[in-house]
Amino acid sequence: MYPKPFKKLIEHFSSLPSVGPKMAERLTLHLFKQSKEELYDFAESLRAITGLHLCSHCFHIAENDLCGICSDPHRDSATLCIVEEPMDVIAIERTGRYRGRYHVLGGTLEVSPKKHSEHSLHISELLARIENETITEIILATNPTTEGDLTALYLARKLEKLGITITRLGRGLSTGGDIEYADELTLSSALTHRRTL
Amino acid sequence: MYPKPFKKLIEHFSSLPSVGPKMAERLTLHLFKQSKEELYDFAESLRAITGLHLCSHCFHIAENDLCGICSDPHRDSATLCIVEEPMDVIAIERTGRYRGRYHVLGGTLEVSPKKHSEHSLHISELLARIENETITEIILATNPTTEGDLTALYLARKLEKLGITITRLGRGLSTGGDIEYADELTLSSALTHRRTL
Repeated sequence: MYPKPFKKLIEHFSSLPSVGPKMAERLTLHLFKQSKEELYDFAESLRAITGLHLCSHCFHIAENDLCGICSDPHRDSATLCIVEEPMDVIAIERTGRYRGRYHVLGGTLEVSPKKHSEHSLHISELLARIENETITEIILATNPTTEGDLTALYLARKLEKLGITITRLGRGLSTGGDIEYADELTLSSALTHRRTL
Repeated sequence: MYPKPFKKLIEHFSSLPSVGPKMAERLTLHLFKQSKEELYDFAESLRAITGLHLCSHCFHIAENDLCGICSDPHRDSATLCIVEEPMDVIAIERTGRYRGRYHVLGGTLEVSPKKHSEHSLHISELLARIENETITEIILATNPTTEGDLTALYLARKLEKLGITITRLGRGLSTGGDIEYADELTLSSALTHRRTL
């Protein structure tokens, strides 16, 4: 009933998380009403992100082999903050309260059924970093959820023999919530009041 | 903090209706994890809809000068269904209960402030169609909202002297709702029980 190109764009939008078929239809109709330039520019930026990849060191999103944070010589190399996803790096960076480095796990361990095992997360790479770098503190900044807590606990046990201070973000964050949705003040204070596990 | 191409795609998504900045970030991250082929295909379908336009006759979305419905000789030319948006055409087509033709207004009149005046809607084109075509019934299928009712009333008054049966979709539809969100059964029965204004 819609012309083919229209249907195809609806399908692409429908395949995105939290976009239902009705919303996909609305988005497509909205875009259809935009100028050709706007659409070409949108298309171009979709193509452009294929040039990006994960930082080979910390697994944040990067334009070059190393991300902007890993390649910044002024960041404190002695503190490592471990997060689930690239969006958590951005959320913590926005507070302006952290000058250390990051390691992005790429997810959490799951209670059951196991979606991620130790091997599908960037944990072996983390252990290699700890061996090669002079790290004195590791902040386990996984989300304050069951899976995030589980992953933090698992890592804390794995790292406890190394004699490095292991901390977890202060629970100013509401349990069950997402770090990336926390407002900057809450996240700032959670960072300030981080505690040893 | 994100590489530029990443930021740019977030901005594009943020400019879409009902997509907030957080959701835009999530969508971009989701797409970043997809294959290059998938992204190129998405980009291509964005470019492809620039080849579409509004049907010169009924203002539905069309690949050629006329849309699929206007160019179909088997549709009943004596019944004209007037809707607000192309999505309403699709919703009514899905019921399989209507074999007439359509006229898409492109919106509604607004109570105040006037977003659409008579001139920004496809009303003069509608009057020209009525003059040139042999139409015996006009179904005013604007949404069951204040604006939709206003527009229907306005059109009914304008058309009453012409001696054509003017109907409105039966109010099985919940007031304040949107035609495109109605389930097919409700919409079917509303179509069956349409009444003369």
